[in-house]
Amino acid sequence: MKLVVSKDRLNNSLQKVNSIIGTRSTLQILGNILLEAKDGKLTLSSTDLDIRIKTEMSADVIVPGNTTIPAKKFHEITRELLGEEITLEAMENNHVAISSEKTNFKLLGLAADDFPLPLEIHPNKRYTLEQDELARMLNLISYAVNQDDTRKALNGILLSLNDENFVSVATDGRRLALVERSAEGLDEEGIEAILPVKSAVELNRLLGKEGGVTIEIGDNMATFSLDDNSTVMTSKLIDENYPNYKQVIPVSFSRIIELPREIFTAALRRVSLVVSARNFFVKIKFANNKVEFSANSTDVGESVDSIDIEYEGPETIVSFNPIFLLEPLNRLDCDTISMQMNDGYSPIALSSGDGFLYVIMPMRNRQ
Amino acid sequence: MKLVVSKDRLNNSLQKVNSIIGTRSTLQILGNILLEAKDGKLTLSSTDLDIRIKTEMSADVIVPGNTTIPAKKFHEITRELLGEEITLEAMENNHVAISSEKTNFKLLGLAADDFPLPLEIHPNKRYTLEQDELARMLNLISYAVNQDDTRKALNGILLSLNDENFVSVATDGRRLALVERSAEGLDEEGIEAILPVKSAVELNRLLGKEGGVTIEIGDNMATFSLDDNSTVMTSKLIDENYPNYKQVIPVSFSRIIELPREIFTAALRRVSLVVSARNFFVKIKFANNKVEFSANSTDVGESVDSIDIEYEGPETIVSFNPIFLLEPLNRLDCDTISMQMNDGYSPIALSSGDGFLYVIMPMRNRQ
Repeated sequence: MKLVVSKDRLNNSLQKVNSIIGTRSTLQILGNILLEAKDGKLTLSSTDLDIRIKTEMSADVIVPGNTTIPAKKFHEITRELLGEEITLEAMENNHVAISSEKTNFKLLGLAADDFPLPLEIHPNKRYTLEQDELARMLNLISYAVNQDDTRKALNGILLSLNDENFVSVATDGRRLALVERSAEGLDEEGIEAILPVKSAVELNRLLGKEGGVTIEIGDNMATFSLDDNSTVMTSKLIDENYPNYKQVIPVSFSRIIELPREIFTAALRRVSLVVSARNFFVKIKFANNKVEFSANSTDVGESVDSIDIEYEGPETIVSFNPIFLLEPLNRLDCDTISMQMNDGYSPIALSSGDGFLYVIMPMRNRQ
Repeated sequence: MKLVVSKDRLNNSLQKVNSIIGTRSTLQILGNILLEAKDGKLTLSSTDLDIRIKTEMSADVIVPGNTTIPAKKFHEITRELLGEEITLEAMENNHVAISSEKTNFKLLGLAADDFPLPLEIHPNKRYTLEQDELARMLNLISYAVNQDDTRKALNGILLSLNDENFVSVATDGRRLALVERSAEGLDEEGIEAILPVKSAVELNRLLGKEGGVTIEIGDNMATFSLDDNSTVMTSKLIDENYPNYKQVIPVSFSRIIELPREIFTAALRRVSLVVSARNFFVKIKFANNKVEFSANSTDVGESVDSIDIEYEGPETIVSFNPIFLLEPLNRLDCDTISMQMNDGYSPIALSSGDGFLYVIMPMRNRQ
């Protein structure tokens, strides 16, 4: 293998593949990336056995071939090189020569044959959307997945495709976050897949502001292809049944309160500064065109704050774990958020009016 | 105690005093800052028992008095407040009310009487210089102090004042960093003080780009007064004898090589990327108007690089732990650095021509 490649393009690609490289893997080969050079292209692949990321770039391939090279060290070096072009050459004993201008490195790699084979996928369903739209969906729900191992299905996000819409859902059993968008052009047979949260985070990192992403879902495997397939992420899926999330969403609400998102969020964040482990809640009272916030804890102190809104309905008091409200509120970018409720004891919904819905159970009211 | 103070001024002051507040102190009072209000001024004080920082600002004092308040929580709150002015009031049971616009907090404090008394100083010597000059001195030497406890004197930096100059020194026994500047106007009797490295770091953080700083050295105590004494840091000193650092500095050198600092530093950093625990050195060869760098390790690989310089003297090869060279080189801002040596086995000096001197023993040469 011998080739010449643009330094900027190589560094850009290394950034894409390197983040799933573990530093503490017991398998040395998983610390390496696979380099494949042929047909005027250099392809880099990385894997942690659950996720595989492959990205390709044009290169001046002088001798086609494959090898592997320690991922992090390779990137440390290519970042520091002075020239605009880098020459890579496979040498004896799995050494790879890296050179640019007066600088020459030889890194000890491993044979390409030792690198895990690609994960095979047989897609049952294919769907394309804008990268920034998928990024927005993942960003608005990923924090709500279950973090412990008690219910495996909840450790991932649900991707649900049918003939009418594309829905992504995350829940930890105490709150549920969902983004729905219409998905015309799909056939009637729906499909559901549970993407591990680590894969969702990696995918989000790969998504850019422009261009499309094609999702392919197969049995226990999904791929996400970006930028004319020059970058492809493959991920194992969680092989469990996702709970029926629709049951959790109340059918109707008696009160809808429009809230100025930024001002509401800032007041909630301020007031919650005094909560502590034993008193982890903020009380929110809606009455007389005002929201009044209050919190207190025996070891820190107490706080009260208020903001003006338009609300002339019956006085309603609800208590929340402030983190559970701040997580979605901080990630939204809308001016106004609707809070929908029936009383202070039943599930409450937040919606942004553009497909995002958040359902949360208030804490037992402490007045 | 009751007063009104500007939010920006208060936040600025909290930033100054808060960094020495430990999060894991067993004494609860050390997590608090002392608030003292009188004569149109609010004074904040923090201490970790070795260092004390006091800063004062003008305030509208309505009722003079003192109290203490949890430092970190207080700052979290004042950062989030909306108004430009903040009202602070001492309440019953050591509670402190904090209010601004519609937001009201009550934080649980502790009695001012529980706060440690100030460290008393009887200065033997006083010296004033520009803040940015002292910051430069500390920055150029602090990394070279000894990190382990085997020789206590080396855990601090030496501040040496006599009638001719002000010298600051740090060494860990393997390398020595020194900055000297002329100090006219001092009397003949010299004084030496060893400032703990933690105090040097805190002091550096307080120093700004403008204004003077007055150093007062007393028995086992030093103060640093900034900005017309509105901020004063007091620190205990290390009560040990500093070794005779002048012995370490070679009297003469047979070769002086002028090096372009940035280019030399970048090449050294690149080449050192392959060193590993067992082979932690870079070989540097000076000959024929060139510097050639090389390094290798059995587990990572090898590297070579070169830069052009003006040098026609005898071929000289020296080996260094690259970190020991990169630490000063990265902190300097001069274009050219002089490397002075006799051969590849005796102490070598780096100097920037403006008071900075660095002496290092090369590693046993491995050619």
